[in-house]
Amino acid sequence: MIKAAIIGGSGYVGGELLRLLLFHSNVDIVGVTSQSHSGEKISKIHQNLTSVCDLSFQEEDIGKLAKESDVIFMALPHGVSQTKIKDININKTKVIDLGADFRLSDSVLFENVYGVKHVVPDKLKTAVYGLSEAYKEKIRKAQLVACPGCFPTGALLAVYPLAKARLLSGNIIIDSKTGSSGVGIKPQDITHHPERAGDFKAYNIFTHRHFWEIEQEITKFSNSNLNIVFTAHSAPMVRGIFTTVYAFLKKPYGQEEMSKLYKATYKNMPFIRLVESPRIAVVTGTNYADIGIYVQDKKVIVTSAIDNLVKGAAGQAVQNMNIMFNQPETMGLEFPGMHP
Amino acid sequence: MIKAAIIGGSGYVGGELLRLLLFHSNVDIVGVTSQSHSGEKISKIHQNLTSVCDLSFQEEDIGKLAKESDVIFMALPHGVSQTKIKDININKTKVIDLGADFRLSDSVLFENVYGVKHVVPDKLKTAVYGLSEAYKEKIRKAQLVACPGCFPTGALLAVYPLAKARLLSGNIIIDSKTGSSGVGIKPQDITHHPERAGDFKAYNIFTHRHFWEIEQEITKFSNSNLNIVFTAHSAPMVRGIFTTVYAFLKKPYGQEEMSKLYKATYKNMPFIRLVESPRIAVVTGTNYADIGIYVQDKKVIVTSAIDNLVKGAAGQAVQNMNIMFNQPETMGLEFPGMHP
Amino acid sequence: MIKAAIIGGSGYVGGELLRLLLFHSNVDIVGVTSQSHSGEKISKIHQNLTSVCDLSFQEEDIGKLAKESDVIFMALPHGVSQTKIKDININKTKVIDLGADFRLSDSVLFENVYGVKHVVPDKLKTAVYGLSEAYKEKIRKAQLVACPGCFPTGALLAVYPLAKARLLSGNIIIDSKTGSSGVGIKPQDITHHPERAGDFKAYNIFTHRHFWEIEQEITKFSNSNLNIVFTAHSAPMVRGIFTTVYAFLKKPYGQEEMSKLYKATYKNMPFIRLVESPRIAVVTGTNYADIGIYVQDKKVIVTSAIDNLVKGAAGQAVQNMNIMFNQPETMGLEFPGMHP
Amino acid sequence: MIKAAIIGGSGYVGGELLRLLLFHSNVDIVGVTSQSHSGEKISKIHQNLTSVCDLSFQEEDIGKLAKESDVIFMALPHGVSQTKIKDININKTKVIDLGADFRLSDSVLFENVYGVKHVVPDKLKTAVYGLSEAYKEKIRKAQLVACPGCFPTGALLAVYPLAKARLLSGNIIIDSKTGSSGVGIKPQDITHHPERAGDFKAYNIFTHRHFWEIEQEITKFSNSNLNIVFTAHSAPMVRGIFTTVYAFLKKPYGQEEMSKLYKATYKNMPFIRLVESPRIAVVTGTNYADIGIYVQDKKVIVTSAIDNLVKGAAGQAVQNMNIMFNQPETMGLEFPGMHP
Repeated sequence: MIKAAIIGGSGYVGGELLRLLLFHSNVDIVGVTSQSHSGEKISKIHQNLTSVCDLSFQEEDIGKLAKESDVIFMALPHGVSQTKIKDININKTKVIDLGADFRLSDSVLFENVYGVKHVVPDKLKTAVYGLSEAYKEKIRKAQLVACPGCFPTGALLAVYPLAKARLLSGNIIIDSKTGSSGVGIKPQDITHHPERAGDFKAYNIFTHRHFWEIEQEITKFSNSNLNIVFTAHSAPMVRGIFTTVYAFLKKPYGQEEMSKLYKATYKNMPFIRLVESPRIAVVTGTNYADIGIYVQDKKVIVTSAIDNLVKGAAGQAVQNMNIMFNQPETMGLEFPGMHP
Repeated sequence: MIKAAIIGGSGYVGGELLRLLLFHSNVDIVGVTSQSHSGEKISKIHQNLTSVCDLSFQEEDIGKLAKESDVIFMALPHGVSQTKIKDININKTKVIDLGADFRLSDSVLFENVYGVKHVVPDKLKTAVYGLSEAYKEKIRKAQLVACPGCFPTGALLAVYPLAKARLLSGNIIIDSKTGSSGVGIKPQDITHHPERAGDFKAYNIFTHRHFWEIEQEITKFSNSNLNIVFTAHSAPMVRGIFTTVYAFLKKPYGQEEMSKLYKATYKNMPFIRLVESPRIAVVTGTNYADIGIYVQDKKVIVTSAIDNLVKGAAGQAVQNMNIMFNQPETMGLEFPGMHP
Repeated sequence: MIKAAIIGGSGYVGGELLRLLLFHSNVDIVGVTSQSHSGEKISKIHQNLTSVCDLSFQEEDIGKLAKESDVIFMALPHGVSQTKIKDININKTKVIDLGADFRLSDSVLFENVYGVKHVVPDKLKTAVYGLSEAYKEKIRKAQLVACPGCFPTGALLAVYPLAKARLLSGNIIIDSKTGSSGVGIKPQDITHHPERAGDFKAYNIFTHRHFWEIEQEITKFSNSNLNIVFTAHSAPMVRGIFTTVYAFLKKPYGQEEMSKLYKATYKNMPFIRLVESPRIAVVTGTNYADIGIYVQDKKVIVTSAIDNLVKGAAGQAVQNMNIMFNQPETMGLEFPGMHP
Repeated sequence: MIKAAIIGGSGYVGGELLRLLLFHSNVDIVGVTSQSHSGEKISKIHQNLTSVCDLSFQEEDIGKLAKESDVIFMALPHGVSQTKIKDININKTKVIDLGADFRLSDSVLFENVYGVKHVVPDKLKTAVYGLSEAYKEKIRKAQLVACPGCFPTGALLAVYPLAKARLLSGNIIIDSKTGSSGVGIKPQDITHHPERAGDFKAYNIFTHRHFWEIEQEITKFSNSNLNIVFTAHSAPMVRGIFTTVYAFLKKPYGQEEMSKLYKATYKNMPFIRLVESPRIAVVTGTNYADIGIYVQDKKVIVTSAIDNLVKGAAGQAVQNMNIMFNQPETMGLEFPGMHP
């Protein structure tokens, strides 16, 4: 059994981690921390776990938890996990971080984007970017995995086969639409139900932090500097990120040829489904990324649908854990979603 | 022109008052106050008024505003307007209060229910309960009108004809379902979009403050002590209160006979529509209360649909103003709602 | 392994049955029929099963399927399963019917309520009403189980302890609110998204077919004729039935005493959770029925939250199968729901 | 008073036309037709008009209606109005068509896109494309106005200043998201509430009919052949189209300079509001198009928010009527929307 602990379990991502790990047949949960709710029953916050989980949130004693655990999941606000990691001997206890602290490999860029100095810039070199499908072999050997942001997960899975095959030139436009759960468990103006329920808007145009993560990865995949534009939108749904990518091919491609490329790239990737028309409703609650590809001459549109809290966060983290501990990749992630 | 001021214009009720008064052909807005937003453009908070309203929120100087106004609307948190009313000479400036401070005529009951001592208990005697359809003649002569709460409006309009005709005996069960805007403009746990969007629940069972207001009025209408139960529920919609009333008749009644009673009671009441099946979607944005009546022997079910922010608050307040100033009752309240 | 077949697998209930049975560790699916979609991939209709289920819908050959199966699930429109059951030797193959055909034990009542003559009225005597918590021992030995309707499930689980303990007198008011999935997979006016999204309404007042099912069972539980009123409402959510029951006790009861009664009655019932405040969001996707009890003197309010397609249909059917085949009652029904 | 008739009044667009025209202070409604509902009360279909509109739908007798009317609005399925127009003497009675039949000026293109032969191709020459802000002077003199489709309205108002100023080169990516009311009043799979409520998807990629309308107009505005990509998405809201346009400037531009261009272009256009961040919730029910512009070097993003049934259909039609009959442009279109 893999002994796992969760640092920061009272948010939405922490709750999803718990939901997945509690039913993972090869995981024992050693402890779940929460600074604001320590001592309280977990099921008081995550009411879905009533009668399923009898644990309480405990105070953070990371050193102790690390010693008792094979793996530590960190589901913390940006900027926090970099200050905690020194308490963990990552050669003995693997770390899967779900925040932004170890995603960008350039500490100067990190500081510009997140506005705080990085306190362990050397760790940025050893951290593996945890996009499971792109870096499976690196993840397998990693001690510190930085799970991608929710928008980057949806965008990169859509673009990866094109970028890796070096088919693109010019601009890549990434238009993403997210549900409200991405904001987290704390009420905010933008997620006040009366304001959000029938609304749709774009936000942080040209300045969204996930842009740099997307740019870093597409540049690595393609080994070239493409001109990337990324826009985030908030949609009136709870879960899901739908991404529409507009890209341009160096030379014309047929629809069938393109489908073959995607099939080949994602062969043996159990959570990628190439479908006619991705839909958020179909992936809600699941670790699937549904992808649709549409080609017209040199123009290509790729759409993807993921659940932001699962494939875009907790599910991908568990998938990475499975890879890191040589478990079947899908273990604990079998939930197929519902209809409707 | 009626000169009107709004004390507390930055909430949802204040915003609706503005929307209605700005287009009222016989009203001049003298000023709109907000403690938290004074100095800011009103259209920054109520973005729907962009290019429609060029005013800014001003600081509260109630004495001055009162002198310049024919009528003062107070859209303030409970407990606040009773502390402000002393600054207004209500013999010269009429006051329409949209909070709870002047709804209950018994100051001891008020203190038990709201947990604060009433500082002007004598005003409770002179305040008129502003359920437009039940108290039109009193409202016409009133200097201080206490607009009913949103739940009481929906419940009382459903029950009024039955109670007034003294047809009821035994229990009255009032089961109400509200949209999220009733909570106000400030984000709260219960209206965090991820929590509210697909949810439905009951709250404050046996303890909801609106119970006492409902009980007071049904007792007055019926001149008897009926056994009233009221339960509030939160539904995953933004606007609207749907109320289902279960009551018991002293003797059997026919459907047609009952319809006649309702028609007669609500004759010349332009905002009451007796319909086959009231629906929230149909009344959204409007001052209408749609009512359905269903009789089976001695059992009667009455349903009503209102917009909580219009007929349940700002709209009824404007209707009362029209009555108080001898304007056509529907003036400024003509918006018929949309389909869909 | 239990060999199971589904007759009528292309609707929402059929889809949920598939979702549950595919992951049940002791079930083999022998076949899934659909008259309108025979020959098509199941995952074309139930897209959540893409890459999970490779089966296609097959034509109905009930006799053949029955011979190959230990249990037949029938998820058919009302009036249809009674015409099919003659093709099944129910002494060899157990039948779990999810329609209304075998719920009412009185064939004359059935004909009045559903407007069709019952072709196998004798079967009504042997069919067991499949409210798992109330009739576990009968279900264990049953050959034909009639799963309760969605509204009756929510209502009866709320009332059962009170009725069984003979505490009630007078009226029982049952006010239920349902999501749109209860209507089924076929688009209808009442579930057209533009009409339903922000709407709330009551429907079929005094005439809803589920009333008679509720009345039959409460009468059996309490061995008395209580005066029951049931009203169905449509709420703007997809899944869930929230029920508010108003009942009256023969003598006053304390809150604690009442809680004890419910705890005792539902001891060892793994899917009943007695909670402070039931919520639809918490039970969505699960087989749980969350129940809240509130007493004030002789008045009692009970609220319950279920997922109409799971505990109100497919989940309870699987729970009944587990009981009938001596499996752990929770097998295949472990999904705890999500937050948010 | 302008005498107006509506051909096809039972759909959502017809209902909005009625809502607007009934309260237009200078319009008399001569008649409203519906083939499927002739003889029925209009308020039976458009329940929001209960007690507001006492008219019934009448059978189509276009010749007669045209003789009695100054203007005919046609809100008909695509392909139908071209077969009706011969019954109208458009030199005496102006026609405002809300369908697609007269939007494309090239009849061959029309036939390719809509799959039917155009029966009055000569009329395509005289019809004026009714994008009020771009063609006000032509509309003023027009006898036949073809109101733009909902997606083109949102897209073109965003692009118009850039295209007209000839600032663009290369690709224009138009990513649009629509509410469910765009589908019309007839229930369909894609708008079945259980399927649509929490869903998001793209549809008709590379094949949506509105593409050709958008291309025709941008080509006219810019007098050049830009490479346009348009994708429609369905979002889980009822009303509204949010459009995100990605375009590329021939040379770098500053944010302020760009704002000035938009302000200048839309000077004296009462329904265009240049705002920081357009939102669907803010324009719902109104004729406003809220536009946001964001420049970064040579990249420009423009977002727009409109109500698809108002500015995207009935509202723009009434705006055009006002222009054609020398009325104040905003008459009858004053509703400012609600908050929330």
